[in-house]
Amino acid sequence: MRILGIDPGYGITGFGVIEGDLGQYRLLKCGAITTPPGADFSARLEMIYEDMRQLLAVTKPDAVAIEELFFGHNVTTGIGVAQSRGVILLAVRQAGVELFSYKPMQVKQAVVGYGNATKHQVMDMTRRLLHLERMPKPDDAADAIAIALCHARCATSLLGRVANENKRGF
Amino acid sequence: MRILGIDPGYGITGFGVIEGDLGQYRLLKCGAITTPPGADFSARLEMIYEDMRQLLAVTKPDAVAIEELFFGHNVTTGIGVAQSRGVILLAVRQAGVELFSYKPMQVKQAVVGYGNATKHQVMDMTRRLLHLERMPKPDDAADAIAIALCHARCATSLLGRVANENKRGF
Repeated sequence: MRILGIDPGYGITGFGVIEGDLGQYRLLKCGAITTPPGADFSARLEMIYEDMRQLLAVTKPDAVAIEELFFGHNVTTGIGVAQSRGVILLAVRQAGVELFSYKPMQVKQAVVGYGNATKHQVMDMTRRLLHLERMPKPDDAADAIAIALCHARCATSLLGRVANENKRGF
Repeated sequence: MRILGIDPGYGITGFGVIEGDLGQYRLLKCGAITTPPGADFSARLEMIYEDMRQLLAVTKPDAVAIEELFFGHNVTTGIGVAQSRGVILLAVRQAGVELFSYKPMQVKQAVVGYGNATKHQVMDMTRRLLHLERMPKPDDAADAIAIALCHARCATSLLGRVANENKRGF
């Protein structure tokens, strides 16, 4: 099974592709889609959409895992991220790939086994499980890899079924 | 000049097309794009995107005016609306039509001449300016018409230039 994890943004959208089976996964590819701050917002959305389509065509994932949004301190940034997530979801849908959405707490639970794990713990466990010397940069790519790994570990568990049932949500 | 106004949503997206010149405008077409609540969220985004592309192809507007988002009481709904707005902006961009974004207060200011006008005042003035007997239903279509009229009245004014300069924003 090949899983594309996505950490959505409008300035920078992280992605990571992992592949494997029966609990053994390896990192295939990761990176980030970036857009220039000076461009029109709708031009940036178009860049994200086009790059996402290309990424899906090239990496051919069996499933896409993406972080569910919640709005914390910066609602204005959140509005931009949500609009970007909209065009990402559209690209995934058009590619006919199954989409799974996970809350940050679900990622922590699946990767570390503890829903209140720190970011450092999530990164360290992701690194170990994928047998990496260090986590790749930028952080957005590393986060996307953790989301992909979350889906890998959830896909056959109760948490995975819950995520699947929640597909009608945002 | 033909202007397509849009009131973005994911369950219901209102639209209204007005046409005219030199301060005289008439309503050409209005309605709403609706999506079924039971469907996958990404399927709903795809429906909105496809319907918006078709609407742009059929109505051939010179400009699109859309409401800028702000998040009030219901942030969860707001996340869904913002994702929908993302695919709408993408469709407009791909159609090569100029996009203008207005805050609710700018719509009130442009239509009624008073930034704290009530919704009723905005609707009543929109109705008079377009020489309509009554405002069409649903409310989302009526709101979209007001946004289109806002752009019509702003296009040559300072407010319009400000909106134009703000195109890099969300």
